[in-house]
Amino acid sequence: MIEVGPNSYGKSAIRLVKVVRGGTPHRVRDLTLGIALEGDFAASYRDGDNAAVIATDTMKNTAYALAGEHLTGSIEAFALVLGRHFLASGAEVERARVSIDEHAWRSIGAASDAFSRDGSETRTARVVVRHDGVEVRAGIDGLSVMKTARSAFAGFPRDRYTTLKETDDRIMATQVSASWLYGPLADPDLDFDGAYTRVRATFLEVFADHHSVSVQASIWIVGKAILERHPEVAEVSMSLPNLHHWTVDLSPFGIENDREVYISTTEPHGLIEATIRRSGD
Amino acid sequence: MIEVGPNSYGKSAIRLVKVVRGGTPHRVRDLTLGIALEGDFAASYRDGDNAAVIATDTMKNTAYALAGEHLTGSIEAFALVLGRHFLASGAEVERARVSIDEHAWRSIGAASDAFSRDGSETRTARVVVRHDGVEVRAGIDGLSVMKTARSAFAGFPRDRYTTLKETDDRIMATQVSASWLYGPLADPDLDFDGAYTRVRATFLEVFADHHSVSVQASIWIVGKAILERHPEVAEVSMSLPNLHHWTVDLSPFGIENDREVYISTTEPHGLIEATIRRSGD
Amino acid sequence: MIEVGPNSYGKSAIRLVKVVRGGTPHRVRDLTLGIALEGDFAASYRDGDNAAVIATDTMKNTAYALAGEHLTGSIEAFALVLGRHFLASGAEVERARVSIDEHAWRSIGAASDAFSRDGSETRTARVVVRHDGVEVRAGIDGLSVMKTARSAFAGFPRDRYTTLKETDDRIMATQVSASWLYGPLADPDLDFDGAYTRVRATFLEVFADHHSVSVQASIWIVGKAILERHPEVAEVSMSLPNLHHWTVDLSPFGIENDREVYISTTEPHGLIEATIRRSGD
Amino acid sequence: MIEVGPNSYGKSAIRLVKVVRGGTPHRVRDLTLGIALEGDFAASYRDGDNAAVIATDTMKNTAYALAGEHLTGSIEAFALVLGRHFLASGAEVERARVSIDEHAWRSIGAASDAFSRDGSETRTARVVVRHDGVEVRAGIDGLSVMKTARSAFAGFPRDRYTTLKETDDRIMATQVSASWLYGPLADPDLDFDGAYTRVRATFLEVFADHHSVSVQASIWIVGKAILERHPEVAEVSMSLPNLHHWTVDLSPFGIENDREVYISTTEPHGLIEATIRRSGD
Repeated sequence: MIEVGPNSYGKSAIRLVKVVRGGTPHRVRDLTLGIALEGDFAASYRDGDNAAVIATDTMKNTAYALAGEHLTGSIEAFALVLGRHFLASGAEVERARVSIDEHAWRSIGAASDAFSRDGSETRTARVVVRHDGVEVRAGIDGLSVMKTARSAFAGFPRDRYTTLKETDDRIMATQVSASWLYGPLADPDLDFDGAYTRVRATFLEVFADHHSVSVQASIWIVGKAILERHPEVAEVSMSLPNLHHWTVDLSPFGIENDREVYISTTEPHGLIEATIRRSGD
Repeated sequence: MIEVGPNSYGKSAIRLVKVVRGGTPHRVRDLTLGIALEGDFAASYRDGDNAAVIATDTMKNTAYALAGEHLTGSIEAFALVLGRHFLASGAEVERARVSIDEHAWRSIGAASDAFSRDGSETRTARVVVRHDGVEVRAGIDGLSVMKTARSAFAGFPRDRYTTLKETDDRIMATQVSASWLYGPLADPDLDFDGAYTRVRATFLEVFADHHSVSVQASIWIVGKAILERHPEVAEVSMSLPNLHHWTVDLSPFGIENDREVYISTTEPHGLIEATIRRSGD
Repeated sequence: MIEVGPNSYGKSAIRLVKVVRGGTPHRVRDLTLGIALEGDFAASYRDGDNAAVIATDTMKNTAYALAGEHLTGSIEAFALVLGRHFLASGAEVERARVSIDEHAWRSIGAASDAFSRDGSETRTARVVVRHDGVEVRAGIDGLSVMKTARSAFAGFPRDRYTTLKETDDRIMATQVSASWLYGPLADPDLDFDGAYTRVRATFLEVFADHHSVSVQASIWIVGKAILERHPEVAEVSMSLPNLHHWTVDLSPFGIENDREVYISTTEPHGLIEATIRRSGD
Repeated sequence: MIEVGPNSYGKSAIRLVKVVRGGTPHRVRDLTLGIALEGDFAASYRDGDNAAVIATDTMKNTAYALAGEHLTGSIEAFALVLGRHFLASGAEVERARVSIDEHAWRSIGAASDAFSRDGSETRTARVVVRHDGVEVRAGIDGLSVMKTARSAFAGFPRDRYTTLKETDDRIMATQVSASWLYGPLADPDLDFDGAYTRVRATFLEVFADHHSVSVQASIWIVGKAILERHPEVAEVSMSLPNLHHWTVDLSPFGIENDREVYISTTEPHGLIEATIRRSGD
């Protein structure tokens, strides 16, 4: 017998800009949204029955239609509004997943109506709405960070194919993709904007301050600090490429290169991924 | 208490080209590899202890070192060799995941040593090697396909935010990302190259022949055919963006446009993802 | 005094698909168009006077409106139609530049209405229409080619900073961006599709057959052959990145690597650009 | 007769990071360099004679070798050092072109050795060194800016294919690619860092303050201000995509949308390119 296994469908890459004109300066909200539904949709596959298939075009329309009234606070709050709307939109829907990326714009100088985009990072929200509750995950994407000192990598095993030298002073560079789940300790009316600001600040502060003996250790140190300082966070996940910076060998040219000139690379790269979480104890 | 949850680490984006010079024409193998290890690595995070951390640089070296002797057949077979090597490389390793993308090159005319790349699609292999067995998943990425007839979408629910018209004749276009798991019915010495060729042929033949009433129905029809025709396949997963082609309204210009001129778009797009599998019955 | 210097404006990234349904199989024309106007437009800059500024939105509409009747042959011919339309659209227009990229689709098997995209290369047309004549340039973009033998690089100067070894057997790999200008020898009713097919065939044949002592020499040999065989071509320009493939040093592992296993790279890359043309003599 | 026409060759995408460790905080210089030579290189094409062909690998080595001693100030100054080096490297070299993009990193908080990348824009330098002089061009790439008010587009001609409505209040959004040539009025020891900061400030200030009746008019107003305020600038060129933001029609849903909710798009886009310069008068 052949059956439909796990499945979902929805709309991705919905590009929405809202301009809030009430104040001075204006406020620009620049979002990329994705909506996906899961549930009892096997008939749409197996029988070609579209009776339960809310058109993804309708999902797009809904996002634009609700933005005026409901995109007034955090992206997490708007994602919850959208998620609840779609959960209620058909008996077959068991889970509505909404993802929102927010691209930051800051006003130029004292201008009220001119903005430049801060391309340094993207704020993310990933929300799942089910009949028995919600999950809210916030995060940062695309933030490039670097440590020029206090980063080492030594003590690793050596086998036949190992040529990497141990080092107590390397550059560590990565492009952060991090997200954290707000937990049962979180107030249902959590101030998502405030929480984001606080977790982000901890991330950067601890990243800047700590001594790294590996990317793995850095994930632990940063993740542990986030959990210790922010009781609303249940777990934090990071996916960190290790963007190697190799010291250039200038000795053939009679030039000493003491941790000064590097080749920065993207291919190949290490990739370290882990979740740091509160344990049951 | 705070603990290390799910984690993995490894090397990504290893670019390897092997030229097999024995025959005429030469054969070009052009691979992008990723290697990731999972297991008892919590100490590397929590204690900064690198004693078990095989350097990702060593992983890269190993891929190049083993390619001469072991990259002689399918990418699945080479991925298994690498996976077994890394599973055996330390007591802490519980799972070695190896991903290989192969980029196809075909010889130009009758030349023995000149090639052009077939950029139409990428063949993929995703292998997991554990102490108690292996999982082998093969796939196709980046293959753009289109149906210019026999594609419809109607019968979907209409609510306040629905404006999409029903249609019995639309363009369906997508960029295929598909993969299939070889199952327990598979011969341990499965001819992976042959299986790939056969599954791919079924995919294209059934996609071309079927009448689509939705992307969901297409996934079912194509997936079911793959399972019916290829007993070595246990399940097949597809992630299909619906790359909308909108009929241009030329009536303001006094021009009729009967399914002739379209705007092709990528933002936003539908996204339909499902696994079709053999059920327990 | 401050003045407006060279300027142009227009619409880019117009995505147009036309389905020709008359025959079996259908034919899919998949184009990306750009339109740009040059001429006496200083007032639109200096005085903010839009009286001569054909809206770029109108340009887009025009491309779609004319596709039904006029996109019946080569992209060069359609580009000329569009260019002539815009040259006539206002007294200020002195030059209309139209660029069209065509993305190839081939029917799947014997299907009349199912297609897969050939992503290996893009055919390009770049047309300039002036009151006193036209220029038509055709080309190929994104075609990756490789020579696994008969490619050398030696005899180059050595200075303090030279470490590259001379080699008489390296891999040469590049991604071709080539275009050629049809010249005054060209019949005004040139069969652009036929010419494209012939020039492309010469490119591939000579690339495959020749012995390369440098990318520069390859450009000369291929370009000269195109000019010698195709009198309709006045000049040919190529921009060829040298996508280095480095032989991996496996000697630390006791493994010989005789031109078998390579690291393929994209950063940094050589870049060789030249035009080969008929001289005045 | 067939001859070699315009040609150049060199190395692109050289990725170089320099860490200046003397101060607190460290300083991170993150550059992407390109080097290209022009001159009497026809023999390298026509005769396959590499005697004058400085290997592009040597160019790369040279960039790294000279960075320690010479990358101490602006990227323009370093580009001039490299350009002069290569102009002197062989009798055949008539012009050395050096392009440098600098990616900005700012220290995190008060940390001396931790940095995050400011991904909002890239600073560019394009230098040409000839035996009879140099050209220095500085610029900004990738800076996204938006005006939420005081942007209009009206008074344009209407023909059969025009459907765009006139508007006195639209969003204007673009991603700036601008560069300016330092002119003969420039001090040979121009403070390039200071000049860059000043021109950039003028760009943003005037962009924010002006009322736009078209992208063309905006280019004029901003460009003219740069020339008026900065005598060291001889001309300024801009390439501005018009990234359309369309007001969503929410009337089918009974919702008014008074310049609040927009669809942001990238395909198709207007493209307006012009140089504003000092005239001979």
